Amino acid sequence: MGASVFGGGGGGDPYMGGLMAGQAIETGGEVELVALDSLDDDDLILPVAMVGAPTVMAEKFLSGDEGARLRTEIEQTLGRRVSAVACGELGGINGVIPVTWATNTGLPMVDCDLMGRAFPELQMTTAALAGISINPVVMTDERGNLVKFDTITPEWAEKMVRTVVTSMGGEASMCLYPMTVAQAKEATVVGSVSRAMEVGRLLLEAADDPIAALCASVDGYALIEGKIVDVERQTTEGFSRGSVTIEGTGGHNGRFLRLEFQNENLVAMEDGRVVASVPDIITAVDVHTARPIVTEQLRYGQRVSVIALPCDPIWRSPEAIELVGPRVFSYDIDYVPVEELHG
Amino acid sequence: MGASVFGGGGGGDPYMGGLMAGQAIETGGEVELVALDSLDDDDLILPVAMVGAPTVMAEKFLSGDEGARLRTEIEQTLGRRVSAVACGELGGINGVIPVTWATNTGLPMVDCDLMGRAFPELQMTTAALAGISINPVVMTDERGNLVKFDTITPEWAEKMVRTVVTSMGGEASMCLYPMTVAQAKEATVVGSVSRAMEVGRLLLEAADDPIAALCASVDGYALIEGKIVDVERQTTEGFSRGSVTIEGTGGHNGRFLRLEFQNENLVAMEDGRVVASVPDIITAVDVHTARPIVTEQLRYGQRVSVIALPCDPIWRSPEAIELVGPRVFSYDIDYVPVEELHG
Repeated sequence: MGASVFGGGGGGDPYMGGLMAGQAIETGGEVELVALDSLDDDDLILPVAMVGAPTVMAEKFLSGDEGARLRTEIEQTLGRRVSAVACGELGGINGVIPVTWATNTGLPMVDCDLMGRAFPELQMTTAALAGISINPVVMTDERGNLVKFDTITPEWAEKMVRTVVTSMGGEASMCLYPMTVAQAKEATVVGSVSRAMEVGRLLLEAADDPIAALCASVDGYALIEGKIVDVERQTTEGFSRGSVTIEGTGGHNGRFLRLEFQNENLVAMEDGRVVASVPDIITAVDVHTARPIVTEQLRYGQRVSVIALPCDPIWRSPEAIELVGPRVFSYDIDYVPVEELHG
Repeated sequence: MGASVFGGGGGGDPYMGGLMAGQAIETGGEVELVALDSLDDDDLILPVAMVGAPTVMAEKFLSGDEGARLRTEIEQTLGRRVSAVACGELGGINGVIPVTWATNTGLPMVDCDLMGRAFPELQMTTAALAGISINPVVMTDERGNLVKFDTITPEWAEKMVRTVVTSMGGEASMCLYPMTVAQAKEATVVGSVSRAMEVGRLLLEAADDPIAALCASVDGYALIEGKIVDVERQTTEGFSRGSVTIEGTGGHNGRFLRLEFQNENLVAMEDGRVVASVPDIITAVDVHTARPIVTEQLRYGQRVSVIALPCDPIWRSPEAIELVGPRVFSYDIDYVPVEELHG
């Protein structure tokens, strides 16, 4: 649930992720979360993720063999052993999918990820920003099909992986950006998994004002509290795209907030003005429990709070904004950090 | 040009194929065509092909590195050397593409192919019919992207390769069904390249009646002689699909023949009656020279003869008809061999 707060509406439903990880631990035993520092600099770590439309992930399940298949292919291709799996991104499913695959490959999980949040496309990683090659990318489906990519740019990997995902039925399992621990220390968001676990624990403890407690914990801002009055959603080109409108309630009567998403929430707008945007994290949460609601679960009539929190500082350089800023998603606006908009 | 006669309208334009092979030989030297019998039974042969819509092949060129890249990936994956390249299918480009790649990999080309004609989809091969695995399938584009597939069925390979072809711009280079010489003796159309070369030489020699000479050489039937009065063509889902109507001229006045194609000509119909269908080979040829005209080159006003010739006998078993017969292409008709329809 903590990973889903950082997922910004994407990365998969934490209810599903919890069930998947719970079952994996029940059958395969507990998984060790290790710090990068506890591994050798030369050890190979393997970031993994589910790829596709979260709307599909909710109903198309893993067979359980995916992790072992990905690991075998990587080890054969690179001619060396994988020492640990890592999160490709944070999110309700992608934050815990390494747990699933750690149990069935017998590996530890390392405490870092490639985004510090979730993003919809494969090139949108701290690894790409640091110049780490995405290759080889390996993907597999629950039937046993396996595809390996060696691409000239991460953008080409994104383009080709997305079409294969569609032909596999809208969702697949993958690994990408295999790297050494030494590289990971520079090219990942270090400690992001244990940070997400802290936030998850906070959500499980009943607070008097869970929204305020959550905001305090993640330096977040509550943009609005209200009721969802409009949802528009398409599952297209391997993505879940759309928008929701939230009408303010209580002290927010008469206000309307619009969220637009491509798997993840991209921008929040009020009266035509952007009140938060990528790469900062925008997450809708249940108004009573502060538990995150992913974009594919947003429904008419839900009572939600929308919170915005600062992204990892790595995303705020001009190079990073060129990779993941609002213009990449066709919004002709400058990125303004959320704390400048609301601080 | 001979390969294009057997290509049934597909497999690429022989003019382009001739230019490509000519340039390859000019820069890389001549290529040896060897019989399967001259290789060791245990030698590995690598069938290769261009995949995509022939309409795209006419304007999207190879970089020249494709063959070497495919060979390297296969040799690394299988851990053994390739001894010769082979045609995936016959056709104006695909019948000679192994020449191009033989020169830049230093390999001979072996005298066989996987269809004895051209077909639009990857599972439509004598190799699949014989139970040879399509894996690993490797494809690459002229930019340097490389994708390797390990699929549970050839139909899954077809589905996924087709989507990647589309993302690569509609055309790519590939190898598939790597096999030993011992397997190839049972699972390919043996001698089909030298057979195509005989037919090509016949077309280069001026005959008094080239259509009749061609039909005599390939046991073909001239279905109609006339003028193209209608062409409908779409480049969609990685295929070139459409139909042409030919109005009879001379002795065929008042008759109309309709050809329907998906890369290759699939059925020829007259007055609602099927007069030839897959797996038999239907090829439009220039009425004066008998030189084949591929489906992407068919134009309003062209004077053509349409000839139909028997496919290799391997395609006439019930199992083969299930793989490549008219019903596979959504025509609700029984396959009747062309010599029964016209003999």
